[in-house]
Amino acid sequence: MKKIQIAIVGYGNLGKGVELSVAQQTDMEVFAVYSRRPAESVQTYGAAVRALSDLQKDAEHIDVAILCGGSATDLIEQGPEISRYANTVDAFDTHARIPEYFTKVKLSAQDTGHTAIISTGWDPGLFSLNRILAQSILTDGKLYTFWGKGVSQGHSDALRRIPGVAKAVQYTIPNAELIAQIEKGEDIGEDTYARHTRECYVVLQDVADADTVEKAIVSMPNYFKGYRTIVHFIDDATFEAEHKGMPHGGQVIASGTTGTPDASNHQLMRFSLDLGKNSEFTAAITVAYARACYRLNQKNEIGAYTVFDVAPGLLSPLTPEELRAHYL
Amino acid sequence: MKKIQIAIVGYGNLGKGVELSVAQQTDMEVFAVYSRRPAESVQTYGAAVRALSDLQKDAEHIDVAILCGGSATDLIEQGPEISRYANTVDAFDTHARIPEYFTKVKLSAQDTGHTAIISTGWDPGLFSLNRILAQSILTDGKLYTFWGKGVSQGHSDALRRIPGVAKAVQYTIPNAELIAQIEKGEDIGEDTYARHTRECYVVLQDVADADTVEKAIVSMPNYFKGYRTIVHFIDDATFEAEHKGMPHGGQVIASGTTGTPDASNHQLMRFSLDLGKNSEFTAAITVAYARACYRLNQKNEIGAYTVFDVAPGLLSPLTPEELRAHYL
Repeated sequence: MKKIQIAIVGYGNLGKGVELSVAQQTDMEVFAVYSRRPAESVQTYGAAVRALSDLQKDAEHIDVAILCGGSATDLIEQGPEISRYANTVDAFDTHARIPEYFTKVKLSAQDTGHTAIISTGWDPGLFSLNRILAQSILTDGKLYTFWGKGVSQGHSDALRRIPGVAKAVQYTIPNAELIAQIEKGEDIGEDTYARHTRECYVVLQDVADADTVEKAIVSMPNYFKGYRTIVHFIDDATFEAEHKGMPHGGQVIASGTTGTPDASNHQLMRFSLDLGKNSEFTAAITVAYARACYRLNQKNEIGAYTVFDVAPGLLSPLTPEELRAHYL
Repeated sequence: MKKIQIAIVGYGNLGKGVELSVAQQTDMEVFAVYSRRPAESVQTYGAAVRALSDLQKDAEHIDVAILCGGSATDLIEQGPEISRYANTVDAFDTHARIPEYFTKVKLSAQDTGHTAIISTGWDPGLFSLNRILAQSILTDGKLYTFWGKGVSQGHSDALRRIPGVAKAVQYTIPNAELIAQIEKGEDIGEDTYARHTRECYVVLQDVADADTVEKAIVSMPNYFKGYRTIVHFIDDATFEAEHKGMPHGGQVIASGTTGTPDASNHQLMRFSLDLGKNSEFTAAITVAYARACYRLNQKNEIGAYTVFDVAPGLLSPLTPEELRAHYL
């Protein structure tokens, strides 16, 4: 059987992860990596590298293009553009702009008979899927999302922009006491600042003053102000030895009640991830949704979709008969 | 807007749970409970009670019939029968007979333009859905299902059949040490007996001998033999005070790796339930899938489906636009 031909558009951490994940599949292969950089400067694990400007020309050979650029500047342009000539899957993660992005991609894909699945990472993505399950089943309930323990790229970038900071990483740590309260069916209130601790490991530049840097961190609005923030100053060798990984994770917890007001019963649903390498896991999700994207397009289901619209069985390489016999 | 009309077929613990869950929905109402028992002997929370023999006659008023009987004797007959004249949802849970049951229900529903969603509880059901997500995303991984801590009805029934036992309950308890090994990315091997402890609380009849009963329990094949089994003999008052609840739960854990053989990364996905009352949670799942069943039928998607075939968004009372804006 002909394998599903995957184009990898953009070759940062996510694109690399997609190449590695496709190599684990028996029904797919990478047609090529597409990059803006000169092909000779892009070191893949073996996939051909072609210019991004060749993508449209190659479209007839590609079943699904997985868009691996950043949401803010790359995807917002590429999604509506590329879905005019290819089926696409992405992990668009700017929550506030999802409706606008969905509409643009939908118009492009519908016009031209393509299928696009947007926002297929883990949040948005798998976490969203579990939020819907929980919200639909535990009607009388509350939904909570906790992130971590893990590296927040956005907060790490914010630390590195502070004058005097040479290297830095920020770990988001969920508040275990609040999670324990939810497990007992208690209400933890609306204070979202209390739900996470922000732990920072910072290597200072030689001339920098630790007190000044720490004050700049804990007072930074949107990122750290209001949160319990812990700052550790460490030396470069410690940073290189202990803080180069990309662990992440998190959990969606739904706490609800069923029964009658006189005899109510506490019910808890939880979906959690503990990831050794965030980008490779996100990549594996986009690859599974690429399989679904291909199948939807084969069934002439065109336009834009999210994880809410995709039947879970479409993600699996197994047949519906195999799934019912062995996984139900 | 007209509410989705639900028939509850069978009124044991699951049927009661369905009535209570429908009462929490704004877009559904119970048309009637259908029972084999005389109507005056069936105490509902308010729903009308009608004879099971009236169900077919009432079918034109019913959008979805939720089948709440037992799998072994009720559903195996009722599923193929009732899906000839109504859309149906059930929580059929005899894993080994699912392919056969699916085929029968499919033929009935297809012939007559109906939609049936089978096996929508939590295992099979939500656990199956998470097994598929995990198996599709962590291609190089292993799947584990643990049950408990919770009451196993089947094992409790087995205890009560032993001569000399007046009352009994069996709690299935997952092996926390094995779960901790999985969390660390270790392989726990194939010994499924080691994964759970079976803890029994037994009230003896006056004349019974504790040693004889305990030996009968721990040597019972299929149920207890081979498992770590703990037997507590307690008095009737303790049983009534402490062991009348129906807690249950469990978890599906997927442990896999991504990356290259030289640089592999451990990734863990987990879906877990901690249920105060098993039957009411299962009921809430069937009710959410009843909404999906109604919508599929409205879209002329006829035949038999499982949780693998149902897009998650169909479970929610919210519109696709609302879901994308607030839950993605």
